[in-house]
Amino acid sequence: MSVFVTRRIPAEGLRVLSQASGCRVQQWDSEEPVPRSELLAGVAGARGLLCLLSDRIDREVLDAAGPGLKVISTLSVGFDHLALDEIKKRGIRVGYTPDVLTDATAELTVALLLSACRRLPEAAEQVRSGGWTTWKPLWMCGHGLSDSTVGIIGLGRIGQAVARRLKPFGVRKFLYTGSGPKPESAAEFGAEFVPLTRLAQESDFVVVTCALTPATQGMCNKEFFGRMKKTSVFVNTSSDPAAHRERHVRHQEHHGRAGSQQPAGRAARGAHAPRAEAVMASPAGAQAVMASPAGAQAVMASPAGSQAVMASPAGAQAVMPALLELRL
Amino acid sequence: MSVFVTRRIPAEGLRVLSQASGCRVQQWDSEEPVPRSELLAGVAGARGLLCLLSDRIDREVLDAAGPGLKVISTLSVGFDHLALDEIKKRGIRVGYTPDVLTDATAELTVALLLSACRRLPEAAEQVRSGGWTTWKPLWMCGHGLSDSTVGIIGLGRIGQAVARRLKPFGVRKFLYTGSGPKPESAAEFGAEFVPLTRLAQESDFVVVTCALTPATQGMCNKEFFGRMKKTSVFVNTSSDPAAHRERHVRHQEHHGRAGSQQPAGRAARGAHAPRAEAVMASPAGAQAVMASPAGAQAVMASPAGSQAVMASPAGAQAVMPALLELRL
Repeated sequence: MSVFVTRRIPAEGLRVLSQASGCRVQQWDSEEPVPRSELLAGVAGARGLLCLLSDRIDREVLDAAGPGLKVISTLSVGFDHLALDEIKKRGIRVGYTPDVLTDATAELTVALLLSACRRLPEAAEQVRSGGWTTWKPLWMCGHGLSDSTVGIIGLGRIGQAVARRLKPFGVRKFLYTGSGPKPESAAEFGAEFVPLTRLAQESDFVVVTCALTPATQGMCNKEFFGRMKKTSVFVNTSSDPAAHRERHVRHQEHHGRAGSQQPAGRAARGAHAPRAEAVMASPAGAQAVMASPAGAQAVMASPAGSQAVMASPAGAQAVMPALLELRL
Repeated sequence: MSVFVTRRIPAEGLRVLSQASGCRVQQWDSEEPVPRSELLAGVAGARGLLCLLSDRIDREVLDAAGPGLKVISTLSVGFDHLALDEIKKRGIRVGYTPDVLTDATAELTVALLLSACRRLPEAAEQVRSGGWTTWKPLWMCGHGLSDSTVGIIGLGRIGQAVARRLKPFGVRKFLYTGSGPKPESAAEFGAEFVPLTRLAQESDFVVVTCALTPATQGMCNKEFFGRMKKTSVFVNTSSDPAAHRERHVRHQEHHGRAGSQQPAGRAARGAHAPRAEAVMASPAGAQAVMASPAGAQAVMASPAGSQAVMASPAGAQAVMPALLELRL
């Protein structure tokens, strides 16, 4: 029996497939998405399909595969790209990978937060360019987490994992918002459920980890950014395509851009963490989430809801739009 | 009475001085160190001197100041730049600022660690240069803290503060080394006291937070780096001037440089976190530690061992050499 893999995937995953008795792996062995024509050709006669978020698995693909196709696994927590009705109708089992990247996503979120508030990209650039000469007490000042207020939009698994990691940094107060209070989840952090407006106003750090739903779409709009403190840092690891970038830019216009455009020594206190960097860094980090070894291990560990050997990174849904927003 | 301030310092500190009754502030209002001649002229007749690590306060300066000088405060935890014998002889009180930057130093250390292992500088560069096109499962792979072994060289205040922050990231095992076991400090993290060689061999992350002493000087030498895992990340926020840089370079030569010099998609698994970046980022981060608002607040909060209004960042001793090593 053959399995078609639509992308170059972590070696561990491919190994498991290849070593499975009687399993012949065909692969679109590229970092780039498989062209539609290659997908249709590759899946023909396959018993299994291991695909990514970028592959639309619809009736046409299923027809191309033929009746031998028994299992589809997607290297993602999301499955909007799968025509589930058609798939069910044909009795095909579906695997996906929920939750395996919660830790990695939370870790990246904290990494981005620290990198933005401590101005690491700027600072590294200064070292490279020779801008760092001697110690200057006011140079490259950042803002720290000690005694800060952190607002989390969406205190789900990832939001909680972020809060858990930030807590020992001396965060004074956690705020959160969402569809409703979650007292059990919030208790660990002493987090207070507040309206979005209050979260925006009071937070020194805003972390967005909510799912993309009609209720959350466009939540962080111009008004939201207008309410934020001038010095606050915004880290988005959620889904909200396209609009966000525009808002970041507006926010920068509103508050002025910090960092390298400011005279050295002036950027220190009020202005601080470069939002432009944060915007840039956020999707990059998100990409890193997708590609992390945690995901690779998941190839072996989490064939959730499927009998096939299934693949990796959850958190995909939360992350892809961050990429999209850059391309728009 | 007049106080001479040898550098531009955080506004909060200057304000306290300026508002003190009868206190006339003279200042070398520059980001650059005060030239010796200006120091000698500025201190003449002063009752107080607020200086930095970069100012050598010796008999010549004390003579220039004259008998009116009653208090010296240094914006540092270190005081090797002060001729204490001469100062004591003249009955001058000395202030310094221990411990106020423990949290900031630990935060920066974690920021640098995450930035290195998650390859944020590289990733941000890719976003800027247009290198980020579509999601690629193996692209910009980093290594995470989940289930990792973290080795801490010097489990003092800063080392403990680092461990406390790293723990909720899912670190599997903390190792530490130093002059001897510290069971009480180690208990919080279940940290195991091990010889330096074992720490080097087993750690996925090595964090150096020890003081510079004859016993620690040169501790992380070529042999040490040779024992480290190829994939481990090394973060130095300690004192060890000059030699470290050479060793980093050797380490890079030994293991090859990761990151942008590797073909995309190959850097993913084995090679990972760019040590070159880590070296670059480390002193820059250290600088940020020095300049943090935490330090600024300390201007008001911590006139330790002195009646004068004293100044800011502790952790200076741990940090300045990191700067020096870049300039050599």
